[in-house]
Amino acid sequence: MSASGLPFDDIRTLIRDMPGPDERSRREVMTREAQLIKPAGALGRLEEIVAHLGAWQHRAPPRITRPLVAIFAGSHGVVAKGVSAYPASVNRAMLASFSNGQAAINQLCKQFDIGLKVFDLAIDIPTLDFTEAPALEEAACAATIAFGMEAIANGTDLLCLGEMGIGNTSAAAAIYAALYGGPVAQWVGRGTGVDDAGHARKVAAVEAGLKLHASHLKDPLEVLRRLGGREIAAMLGAIIAARIERVPVIIDGYVATSAAAILHALDPDAIAHCLAGHVAAEGAHRAVLDRLGLKPVLDLGMRLGEGSGAALACGIVKAALACHSGMATFAEASVPEKS
Amino acid sequence: MSASGLPFDDIRTLIRDMPGPDERSRREVMTREAQLIKPAGALGRLEEIVAHLGAWQHRAPPRITRPLVAIFAGSHGVVAKGVSAYPASVNRAMLASFSNGQAAINQLCKQFDIGLKVFDLAIDIPTLDFTEAPALEEAACAATIAFGMEAIANGTDLLCLGEMGIGNTSAAAAIYAALYGGPVAQWVGRGTGVDDAGHARKVAAVEAGLKLHASHLKDPLEVLRRLGGREIAAMLGAIIAARIERVPVIIDGYVATSAAAILHALDPDAIAHCLAGHVAAEGAHRAVLDRLGLKPVLDLGMRLGEGSGAALACGIVKAALACHSGMATFAEASVPEKS
Repeated sequence: MSASGLPFDDIRTLIRDMPGPDERSRREVMTREAQLIKPAGALGRLEEIVAHLGAWQHRAPPRITRPLVAIFAGSHGVVAKGVSAYPASVNRAMLASFSNGQAAINQLCKQFDIGLKVFDLAIDIPTLDFTEAPALEEAACAATIAFGMEAIANGTDLLCLGEMGIGNTSAAAAIYAALYGGPVAQWVGRGTGVDDAGHARKVAAVEAGLKLHASHLKDPLEVLRRLGGREIAAMLGAIIAARIERVPVIIDGYVATSAAAILHALDPDAIAHCLAGHVAAEGAHRAVLDRLGLKPVLDLGMRLGEGSGAALACGIVKAALACHSGMATFAEASVPEKS
Repeated sequence: MSASGLPFDDIRTLIRDMPGPDERSRREVMTREAQLIKPAGALGRLEEIVAHLGAWQHRAPPRITRPLVAIFAGSHGVVAKGVSAYPASVNRAMLASFSNGQAAINQLCKQFDIGLKVFDLAIDIPTLDFTEAPALEEAACAATIAFGMEAIANGTDLLCLGEMGIGNTSAAAAIYAALYGGPVAQWVGRGTGVDDAGHARKVAAVEAGLKLHASHLKDPLEVLRRLGGREIAAMLGAIIAARIERVPVIIDGYVATSAAAILHALDPDAIAHCLAGHVAAEGAHRAVLDRLGLKPVLDLGMRLGEGSGAALACGIVKAALACHSGMATFAEASVPEKS
């Protein structure tokens, strides 16, 4: 597909026209599940996951032959306001560590046999500081959404969405505060580990951003470009492209979920093909997932990003499909059925 | 080790003399975790898991080279009381399906590269019906504990404990009711899927068992032999042997946990080397885990047994160790540290 330079109105059209689930494949998966040698429903969430894969891949049985973790990396002007425990120079060092196989996500992808692609979204050119200006111009934001769409095109049959970017939990918190309201402090977590003073600066920055952009925050795409960042815009594009390509998505943690939240605010059905990989130990992630109607696969107190929670959940999803595909039916195994 | 035919008093001595954790290895693991390229604590539960492995393997870094799912299979006289949705003939058929690679646990072990051993504990000779007599004689129960100890000897460095046996959720429910008291119905779940009438028979059977054995239930080992079954006794032996051999244990669901509950009632510290793989969608499993001080790694609504929840958790545990062992330190990767 080619979506470069779409203005926001064309993105709205794209979202409106996304395909729905294939209920026939979902039913076929559920029919087979009921025939496998186990009490009905005994694999619980694993069975729901496989049905989800079938519905959104439009295939029964579904398949996972090219699972992919896509990490989008961005840089944030608001870091100048002292919102992070780490300097922005970590961004480039972490990109190098991904390349060198040294980060957590490298180990997880190796462990579960998942591909890994990292996309550098102008990491040396921070977005503007959202306390002083919109983080991105509309054209740049739309182009980054289009980049995210193209980045995953024809690349996977199960997409795990992650991110990296010093300062981006501030951007995500600002997005949630703009979308959902309430006291700003409830959306602002510790990120990479700011102390009390840093947390106060983070709350103040988000409050300043909301105040500056107050008259433009009714439109979720304006929320994205004014308060978000390139990696969030690109993840939003990737979620859209995955839906169009019939690829289910596993969303990672607090920041990745902000891309889903923007889409959900545009159309609650637009993220129906997404699973929440885990609930992060960051800010109000669980409250966000509740609003999105997403039940996390894992709850392990993680708050790393990099797609790490999505990759772990991918291990569970692959195992769910392995059970579905590899188990015998009652008839095949001559196991007596329920009395 | 040779532990055949130990009377209960010798088992009590064995439990009393089990080794404790190696706090030095635990500290070494935590020291390394703090140096890896991530914010401190950002891998959450994964970091705790690796520290647990180190402490109980007495090694830093710990290793998982021979993970094993051990399934103990037993047969229960109480099935005659109509407590299960499936006939006892399922037991032998499921053993065959394990051998033929057709069950859920086979797919999970293959997916996560875990060994699988299945132990048939006289599957064609049910224990006595606990509503009419003690399920097992003391000598037979002690011999089965010893069998469980020998079954896993020198066989693994991470033990996942599972079971199979039509009727055994009734035995587990009776054990919990005997250990923890309260209304019997709160401990009795649907097992493989009994209907309301079957559930009522199950509650009645557990109540009858508690009444018959009422004057002998102060001693947890008496609870085990009177209300339990061979697979539960064997799992108890395996948990003891693992501790002695410095092998951490991942406990599976509702029935496997009953073996841990007996040990915990004998000595709350006796299961300190165990992780709860998951919380099952059966009866009051969460309430049991709370009493044991175990926080489940996974919560996926599963209620299959076979070690399936433990095997999935093993996938997470292996991934946790892969991060610990494979990630670079801040110094190695030249990533700037916290400002």
